[in-house]
Amino acid sequence: MITIVAGTNRRNSRARRISDLYAAQLREFGADSRILDLADLPADFTATALYDNAGLHPEFNQLVSLASDADKLVFVVPEYNCSYPGVLKAFIDGLPYPGGIRNKKAALVGLSSGTQGGLLALSHLTDVLMYLGTAVLPLRVRLPTIEASLTTTGQLNNPLFEQLIREQAEQFLQF
Amino acid sequence: MITIVAGTNRRNSRARRISDLYAAQLREFGADSRILDLADLPADFTATALYDNAGLHPEFNQLVSLASDADKLVFVVPEYNCSYPGVLKAFIDGLPYPGGIRNKKAALVGLSSGTQGGLLALSHLTDVLMYLGTAVLPLRVRLPTIEASLTTTGQLNNPLFEQLIREQAEQFLQF
Amino acid sequence: MITIVAGTNRRNSRARRISDLYAAQLREFGADSRILDLADLPADFTATALYDNAGLHPEFNQLVSLASDADKLVFVVPEYNCSYPGVLKAFIDGLPYPGGIRNKKAALVGLSSGTQGGLLALSHLTDVLMYLGTAVLPLRVRLPTIEASLTTTGQLNNPLFEQLIREQAEQFLQF
Amino acid sequence: MITIVAGTNRRNSRARRISDLYAAQLREFGADSRILDLADLPADFTATALYDNAGLHPEFNQLVSLASDADKLVFVVPEYNCSYPGVLKAFIDGLPYPGGIRNKKAALVGLSSGTQGGLLALSHLTDVLMYLGTAVLPLRVRLPTIEASLTTTGQLNNPLFEQLIREQAEQFLQF
Repeated sequence: MITIVAGTNRRNSRARRISDLYAAQLREFGADSRILDLADLPADFTATALYDNAGLHPEFNQLVSLASDADKLVFVVPEYNCSYPGVLKAFIDGLPYPGGIRNKKAALVGLSSGTQGGLLALSHLTDVLMYLGTAVLPLRVRLPTIEASLTTTGQLNNPLFEQLIREQAEQFLQF
Repeated sequence: MITIVAGTNRRNSRARRISDLYAAQLREFGADSRILDLADLPADFTATALYDNAGLHPEFNQLVSLASDADKLVFVVPEYNCSYPGVLKAFIDGLPYPGGIRNKKAALVGLSSGTQGGLLALSHLTDVLMYLGTAVLPLRVRLPTIEASLTTTGQLNNPLFEQLIREQAEQFLQF
Repeated sequence: MITIVAGTNRRNSRARRISDLYAAQLREFGADSRILDLADLPADFTATALYDNAGLHPEFNQLVSLASDADKLVFVVPEYNCSYPGVLKAFIDGLPYPGGIRNKKAALVGLSSGTQGGLLALSHLTDVLMYLGTAVLPLRVRLPTIEASLTTTGQLNNPLFEQLIREQAEQFLQF
Repeated sequence: MITIVAGTNRRNSRARRISDLYAAQLREFGADSRILDLADLPADFTATALYDNAGLHPEFNQLVSLASDADKLVFVVPEYNCSYPGVLKAFIDGLPYPGGIRNKKAALVGLSSGTQGGLLALSHLTDVLMYLGTAVLPLRVRLPTIEASLTTTGQLNNPLFEQLIREQAEQFLQF
């Protein structure tokens, strides 16, 4: 089972729209997937679900199980301040130990308003995932200046970006 | 003015205790400082103070001003999952643009239960801070296996760690 | 076929000695391997085998084939100035394109005189290898303060380090 | 005194041409500078000037003094395999300890054929320089798809790139 993580808690985020497109691509290849949208995180999760509260928040736990039940995870990561969103990392900081997203396989997609396409965000996230024992697909996709290519209703008007996602999805299914 | 950021929202964190010791060290050198403890973040700040809500949350804004009013910032950063705490990055993601912690000077201290002392956490954070135009003091202090050296009441029983903090504080005042 | 890269051109390096121990460990698991010791690089390779001279230096090509003929590569990387040795990167910069070490599988071992164990070196190298399409085993081994554990004749007096190498080698054979 | 390091040993490199333009920009601001072109490295320096041979190679030492005599260093860094050139790091690995490029100030410029502009190269190099006690100007300049903007005779046909260099040079003089 594959879970696609829309890596921000912003509502109707571009990361969510790319996640939906990614799911459609996987479906085209005959693979099921689910979406874990961090917009569904409880509003107070950083105060009630981390550290000494780990495992005690039922809603948070439900989101965790979407990740921990999967063999493979796609992370769709918007670039915030030259790295991954703090909320994505806070979610990871609340995962149970052991368990959580340890020893899985991951594919990374970066989005940005600017020209970096999340390059440093994906590098930083790779360090975190490898620490957790999760293997990262070498082909990391970057989608820079995403506003120019993605409509508010989720159409991707960029053949290169479509191709990059297709190639990564194909490789990831065999990873 | 110097602000010391205790970089986690965990209550009575080791990061907070090191921050207090850092403030005492600065005082010994004749320098005033204030502490911004991320434990004071509103419980729901990730839902109410970021993105479209930036600037709208009075309590969050008050914490922001502790950082934005300072010329120099010390970041005391516990290592969570081989990087900085997600909550620290989420706080940065909620800072106003322009403004916030742009164009300041920063000194970084890493803590860890393990043997890394936050090395990758500080490397990742340096990327973020430099992106924000903030100069980072080259001397980055690492305090590994911190439990062995720091009591629950905030005594640091480690002459080497004390020396590292003293040297960094001294350099930082002239940076 | 597995090739172990001793990642410095220093003669009789600790990296070479760890490479020999790694080969012995692989043999114990029934796997053959070869060693590519960068000490065998031609003295003038940076002037005669890179860029416009890529592929033209027979001795250099012979070393390249040790890497490019392998399916899996172990990199034993001493930490120099907080990153990998420049000579290791210069060797990679001389690899043929396409080909070289693209689309392989890699395991990373870091050594250091200091306490970092090559952590940043391995993070930087992971970025390079992933760019080349090479998958990196999440379990990255770090061997800090190596002088205390490794004799000049190549005995490793450190049961933890032995265990780390054994665990990584075992995982790598199944990667 | 400012030294500009053309960060590759390729002859008549784009890094050298950008270094010349940078020197002209500094001159316009009334500042002298010298160029340390790694193309001038002895062909066999990795075998004769590093490690146990550190300090013994007169030609290498002369290049070193161009760096060690300066207060400020500009690094013009082409992106090779998603990081800095191995030759640049090998040069750093041969610098005397203590001394070399410790405790200086540095500004970083990245060039690339691709779209990254050396982003990871500059991040990796920042880790190395900070380890050496050298402060890095937060404004790191990236010049992607450089072939489209720089002629073989060293004309830069890109007003944005010119502006980025000018802004960085101006900030660096006050750093």
